[in-house]
Amino acid sequence: MTSKKAVILLSGGLDSATTLAYAISKDYSVYALTFNYGQRHAREVVAARELAAHYKIETHKLLNLDLQAIGRSALLDHTKELPMNRPLDKLSNEIPETYVPARNIIMLSYGLSWAESIDAESVFIGVNSIDYSGYPDCRPEFLSTFQHAAELGTKTGVEGKPIKLEFPLINLTKAEIIKLGVELGVPFGLTWSCYRGSAKACGKCDSCQLRLKGFEEAGIDDEIDYDEM
Amino acid sequence: MTSKKAVILLSGGLDSATTLAYAISKDYSVYALTFNYGQRHAREVVAARELAAHYKIETHKLLNLDLQAIGRSALLDHTKELPMNRPLDKLSNEIPETYVPARNIIMLSYGLSWAESIDAESVFIGVNSIDYSGYPDCRPEFLSTFQHAAELGTKTGVEGKPIKLEFPLINLTKAEIIKLGVELGVPFGLTWSCYRGSAKACGKCDSCQLRLKGFEEAGIDDEIDYDEM
Repeated sequence: MTSKKAVILLSGGLDSATTLAYAISKDYSVYALTFNYGQRHAREVVAARELAAHYKIETHKLLNLDLQAIGRSALLDHTKELPMNRPLDKLSNEIPETYVPARNIIMLSYGLSWAESIDAESVFIGVNSIDYSGYPDCRPEFLSTFQHAAELGTKTGVEGKPIKLEFPLINLTKAEIIKLGVELGVPFGLTWSCYRGSAKACGKCDSCQLRLKGFEEAGIDDEIDYDEM
Repeated sequence: MTSKKAVILLSGGLDSATTLAYAISKDYSVYALTFNYGQRHAREVVAARELAAHYKIETHKLLNLDLQAIGRSALLDHTKELPMNRPLDKLSNEIPETYVPARNIIMLSYGLSWAESIDAESVFIGVNSIDYSGYPDCRPEFLSTFQHAAELGTKTGVEGKPIKLEFPLINLTKAEIIKLGVELGVPFGLTWSCYRGSAKACGKCDSCQLRLKGFEEAGIDDEIDYDEM
């Protein structure tokens, strides 16, 4: 048992699953944190649970965030239409309706709070800014500035032992993330990406499109079920 | 009815009450946000409700944050002893047991999320760094860096219309805050500061001590009831 602790933000998608496996490969003792925030695809929370069970994570916390009370987003308002079949080359250039205001800021803040409370060294988040949906809170300039704010605004930071934010996937393509995951033995069949959150993945939302493109470019089969396309 | 909207973090203490009155005096249409985070002094939430009613705030949201699940603090763990009768000159120089890891970071993140969702211009927070308990997340250097992170990590920021963080009390002494509040007509008798959260204020915790000193220096009577001291 190592004493090096890390909090991992585990959504249940393939990026966070790979980040979890990466942290374990670096000998961190892992504390997984998953959020039920009223997302349309609460199906991903089931995936997070299955991933935590697969990796025998001793401490996996599921927090309920009442974002539906305050946030305007197509991921929170289940009556809104999801963007479908957006051209892949435009995904990173415009912020879509699925953007949830300040979501990563809120989730990182909770990660930081927990990390500080259990004397963890790091908070891992599986964001990437290459094959992504144009969310501003996935960009490295945001993450490094948030890290700085966290250093200034926490006890550990003031005491010279700031919690480190780790985002190891930030510059990888989706195909590279999948290849890394395969190397690390990630059970991708347990992960969930589709925003629609039905029994099968839709294959058309931004998240499905990025996933499909990634598996195709990596030359690896995606084991999850998709609707007929 | 003005169209200039602001989210106000309203704890129910005298600083947030004064900040609320200040924002109203600046013609903001006010959206008040209060958190029930398992704090020992949930009594302050009652105060926030009474203040919102006093000011006829149309939208006052109360969010439950599950900080007790992750946070280590004497404010969250009701079995821990509260620091009492700490020398006033030391309050700002050491971080006490009542520090809640990343509390203001979490609360500001929610404020930001709501502000972005309702097209508000600003988020007001009543922190001050003069007569305070040494919490790192009350310092101006933290707040300005958080503002920068928020600009980089939100849609409105990327679009060049960032939500502004306003902390008008940051450089005021507690006495100056109370005098400002009196000018603005704040009903201080409705506010609550004591960490213990019993029927009467204890007069001995950091929060009571700062309040009592402020009223004394301002030469104004504090209308709330204290235990015999």
